[in-house]
Amino acid sequence: MKINGVHYRTVWMEKTVVKMINQAVLPHFFRIEEFKTHQETARAITDMIVRGAGAIGATAGYGMAQVVLEAPDTSAFLDAVAAGAQTLTRTRPTAQNLFYAIDRVSVAAKAARTVPEARASAVQAAEQIAEEDLSSCASIGCHGASLLKDGARVLTHCNAGWLAFVDWGSALAPVYTAVREGKRVFVYADETRPWNQGSRLTSFELGNEGVSHAIVTDNASGFLMQRGQVDIVIVGADRIAANGDVANKIGTYEKAVVAHELGIPFYVAAPTSTIDRNCPNGDAIPIEERAEDEVLYCRGLLDSGEFGRVRLAPPGARACNLAFDVTPARYITGIITQKGVFAPGEILQAVS
Amino acid sequence: MKINGVHYRTVWMEKTVVKMINQAVLPHFFRIEEFKTHQETARAITDMIVRGAGAIGATAGYGMAQVVLEAPDTSAFLDAVAAGAQTLTRTRPTAQNLFYAIDRVSVAAKAARTVPEARASAVQAAEQIAEEDLSSCASIGCHGASLLKDGARVLTHCNAGWLAFVDWGSALAPVYTAVREGKRVFVYADETRPWNQGSRLTSFELGNEGVSHAIVTDNASGFLMQRGQVDIVIVGADRIAANGDVANKIGTYEKAVVAHELGIPFYVAAPTSTIDRNCPNGDAIPIEERAEDEVLYCRGLLDSGEFGRVRLAPPGARACNLAFDVTPARYITGIITQKGVFAPGEILQAVS
Repeated sequence: MKINGVHYRTVWMEKTVVKMINQAVLPHFFRIEEFKTHQETARAITDMIVRGAGAIGATAGYGMAQVVLEAPDTSAFLDAVAAGAQTLTRTRPTAQNLFYAIDRVSVAAKAARTVPEARASAVQAAEQIAEEDLSSCASIGCHGASLLKDGARVLTHCNAGWLAFVDWGSALAPVYTAVREGKRVFVYADETRPWNQGSRLTSFELGNEGVSHAIVTDNASGFLMQRGQVDIVIVGADRIAANGDVANKIGTYEKAVVAHELGIPFYVAAPTSTIDRNCPNGDAIPIEERAEDEVLYCRGLLDSGEFGRVRLAPPGARACNLAFDVTPARYITGIITQKGVFAPGEILQAVS
Repeated sequence: MKINGVHYRTVWMEKTVVKMINQAVLPHFFRIEEFKTHQETARAITDMIVRGAGAIGATAGYGMAQVVLEAPDTSAFLDAVAAGAQTLTRTRPTAQNLFYAIDRVSVAAKAARTVPEARASAVQAAEQIAEEDLSSCASIGCHGASLLKDGARVLTHCNAGWLAFVDWGSALAPVYTAVREGKRVFVYADETRPWNQGSRLTSFELGNEGVSHAIVTDNASGFLMQRGQVDIVIVGADRIAANGDVANKIGTYEKAVVAHELGIPFYVAAPTSTIDRNCPNGDAIPIEERAEDEVLYCRGLLDSGEFGRVRLAPPGARACNLAFDVTPARYITGIITQKGVFAPGEILQAVS
C-alpha cells in the first residue's frame, strides 16, 4: 500500500536491522524507526511502535532472526536462542501470530547443522513469514471482496488494515480489493479507544487509498447498525481458538452481539497463522491488561504541532484497561482466510 | 452533593443571574460561571457548559425566567416571551426536560394578569422545577437503592449523576443512597466518548463521594459483562417515549443489547419530567448530530496544566457524531422514577 504515493511495507529487515513504520505517532508523523538488536525489537512490540496481529508476527519473526544472528558461535548458541525467544514471547500475550513466528524461526534455526547455517535459515524463515503474511492478506482480499456488493457500507473496528500486517491487511483487504474492482464502498471506522487505531490508522490508510469513510466513536456504531446504515461488519483477529471463538481488540464483542441481534453479517478476516489449534476455546485465550494511563489520558497531536496527551480523569482516578475481548463463535457469520471463507466452527479445516 | 466538602447544586439563580458549575472544564478546573441574560444562558446549554437531562431542564427553566424578567412591560411582552422561548428551545434537540421546563415557565408567566405578576410566577416556576428535580432524584435514589445488594457491581454510561441534575442525579442516586445505607457498591464508569462525561464527571462525582470505581473505555464494558463482573446496569435518559423507548447518550443502546443477551438487569433512571407522552416511540425522538471535531479531537488537561485538546485523526478526515441513541423498550428491565420502578411499557402510568 502507498503513503503519499510511495509503496511501503509496515516492517522489514535490512541486514541485521529491523525497520518499521512508527505506528504510535501516526498519522501525525511518518517515521521509519530502526531496531538494531532483538531487545530493541522486543521493546518496539511492547511499546506498540508496531501493533496488529500480522505486523507483530512479522516483527517477532525478524526479531527472532536477530536473536539467531546475535547468538555466540559457541556451545552457548542454543541457550542464547532460547533466551531470546523468551524475551520476544513476553512482549505481548494475546496475538497468536507472535508465538507462531517465534516458534517457526526457532525451529528453522535449530534444524540447521551449523551456526552459520542456522543464521541463514532463521533469516530465510523470517522473510518467508513476512512474504506469506503479504500473500495471505492479498488472498483474503479476493475472498472477502466477493462479500461486498457495489455500494456496500462496511463497519470495522480497530485497525486490521495493512499497518496491522506487512501489507494489504485482513479486514480492510476486501475493501481495497473491491475498490480496485470498481465497486463503491463506504467504511465506518470505529475510533477504537484507548489507542484510537481507528481514527489514527484506519482513517490514515483509507485516506491514502482514496476510500470514502467516516470515523465514529465506539459508542456510535451500534446505533448506526440499528438505523440500517451498515451492510456488513468486518474485523480482524489476534487469536482464533479451535472452536472458532475469536480474540480481537476490545469492543469487538459488543459489535458482534449487536450485529447478531440485528441480523447484520459479521465477518472476521485473518490469515491462518492467527489460528491457535492448541487453544480449545476463547476462555483459554490470555487477555492482556495494559496500563491504566492509556484510559486516563488520550494521546494525539497538540495544537502546537507536537505529539502529546491530555488527561481526562480527575487525580487519583483508577481505570481498568483490558486490551482484547473474546467474541464467541456463535456471533460470527464467517472467517475469511487466505484459503477461503469458513464457518467459525469449521475453522480447523483451514489448517488441516 | 459535595465538592471538597462543600455542598453545591449544579445550577441555581441569584436575582437575575443564572449560575452554574462549568462542566466543560471539570474535573480539571472547578469554575462557577455567571450568565446574566437568557441569551447567555442559552449559549451555556448549546456549548455544554451545562449538560445532562435534569440540569439542562433546570437551566432552561431559569433561562426562561430570565426571558420573562427581561421582557419589556409593554404590549410587546408576550412576543418577547415567545421569542425567548424559541431561543432556548433551539439550544439542543433531544432532552425532553428542556422543553418541559420552557413550557412550564412560559405557561406560568402567561397565566399571570400583570407583567410584574408574570415575572414573579416565572421565577417561582423555575425554582419549583429545580426543587422538584432535586426531590425526584432523591426519591429515585430510594427506589433504586433497593435494587442494589451489598457488594453490587454497577455499570453506568455517561454521567447521570448530580452534575446531570440539580443534585443527587438519576442513575447514580441509587448508588449514593445505597452507600449511605452502608452497602458496598463498586461502579464501572464508561468513559463515554466523545465528551468523556464518564471519565471526567462520573469519576469526579464518585471520587468526591468516596465511592469505589474504575473508569473503562466504552469498548470494555461489554466484555466486563460477559466475564460476569457486572451485576446491574443503570443509565439515565434524555427522553422517554410513551411506549418506553429511551433516548440516552450514544452507546447506551449497545450496552442494553449486550446486557439483554447476557441476562443482566438493565435499568433506566429518570424523573417523570423526562417522559414525553406526545412521542409515541423512539423513532419520533430527534437525535442531535454534533460537530465532527468532537470526534476528531479529544479535550482534556495538557501536561502544561492548561485545558486543551489533541487531534486524533489525519488531516481531512471526516467523522459522524451522533450524540444520542435510542434503546428499544424490550431491552429495558425497568425505569426507576420518583414514583417507583415501572416496566417500560407501563411508563405512562408514572405521569397519569
